[in-house]
Amino acid sequence: MHPTVDTQQRILDSARELIYSRSYADVGVAAICEHAGVKKGSFYHFFPSKRDLTLAVLDAYYLEIKEHLVKKSFANDIPPLARLERFCQLAYAFQKQVLKDTGRVLGCPFGNLATELATQDEPIRIRIEQIFSNLQSSIRQVLREAIAAGEVQNIDDEATAQAMLAYFEGVMLLAKSHNDPEIIGQLLPALALIRITPR
Amino acid sequence: MHPTVDTQQRILDSARELIYSRSYADVGVAAICEHAGVKKGSFYHFFPSKRDLTLAVLDAYYLEIKEHLVKKSFANDIPPLARLERFCQLAYAFQKQVLKDTGRVLGCPFGNLATELATQDEPIRIRIEQIFSNLQSSIRQVLREAIAAGEVQNIDDEATAQAMLAYFEGVMLLAKSHNDPEIIGQLLPALALIRITPR
Repeated sequence: MHPTVDTQQRILDSARELIYSRSYADVGVAAICEHAGVKKGSFYHFFPSKRDLTLAVLDAYYLEIKEHLVKKSFANDIPPLARLERFCQLAYAFQKQVLKDTGRVLGCPFGNLATELATQDEPIRIRIEQIFSNLQSSIRQVLREAIAAGEVQNIDDEATAQAMLAYFEGVMLLAKSHNDPEIIGQLLPALALIRITPR
Repeated sequence: MHPTVDTQQRILDSARELIYSRSYADVGVAAICEHAGVKKGSFYHFFPSKRDLTLAVLDAYYLEIKEHLVKKSFANDIPPLARLERFCQLAYAFQKQVLKDTGRVLGCPFGNLATELATQDEPIRIRIEQIFSNLQSSIRQVLREAIAAGEVQNIDDEATAQAMLAYFEGVMLLAKSHNDPEIIGQLLPALALIRITPR
């Protein structure tokens, strides 16, 4: 890999790992540089501020989740509602792997940063809001296909998609709070049963 | 009020307000002392560490929520499932008031601190876990009364109570992320419809 690209990528990878396993505030630029094995001067060459880095980290988390969770879960090889069940199963398997790797259930990187920073940093809050809206749209598309296939009737698909995302975030939050992935295994499948009817 | 009690209470009240509206990491002991109008020496007289203060803050949040949300919502003057609906309505009204007072939807103080600190501070994580368990028990009691009254059948009341708490936390998290209390107004009533069936 080109050395410049490599340095920037190492900073980004270190920040993703450290912020996800600890918190935004707990991870300083010095710790990120040490973990990445780069000098502070290099850091500021690539990222003018910790906020800029965090926005890049959010985008990297989103790309990974879209590629490895959303796309895989929502592929149209199975009926729409079964895709939502697959989404729950893959999220559960991922958190069990995170626990195995780090000793902790770390939950959702977006939910974690949202609750920590939503009142502190408006650009970061807005980026997370956009990511949540994108995830909600992905779920809504599955619901529309479920309606078209006759699997569900009489729902507000936009509100139902948001309710499903809310439930997902809440289950992740409780699993992190209890450091117990089995909460995800037991509760998350009910996500596919949530319905908000039209007003 | 006795001056000692008054000083301790002022520190606690300031910490509650500042941590809820910002975050744990963003609020230092100096800021709390300044807000409370007390000297740092007084702070450490009453609270040996910021962790000790935060544990006291969590207990104070819990007492308030128990008194003003749980007890009022779950009073037995109306049928059990209607109590869950009242719980959702009061939580929505409270967050609208918080927005009016602070300019921000602040969500759930326990959820906020759980996602920020669960991997950072084990005593704080355990205290939040206990509080979540208490809230879950309160919901479970309502569900048991709903079963006894014939309002619901064939549910795992323990898992359903936890799923309702998860949904509550997730809706609060999304409302904080979007800084929009109407997400609570639209989504939270579906809490009363969640059912986890026995395995």
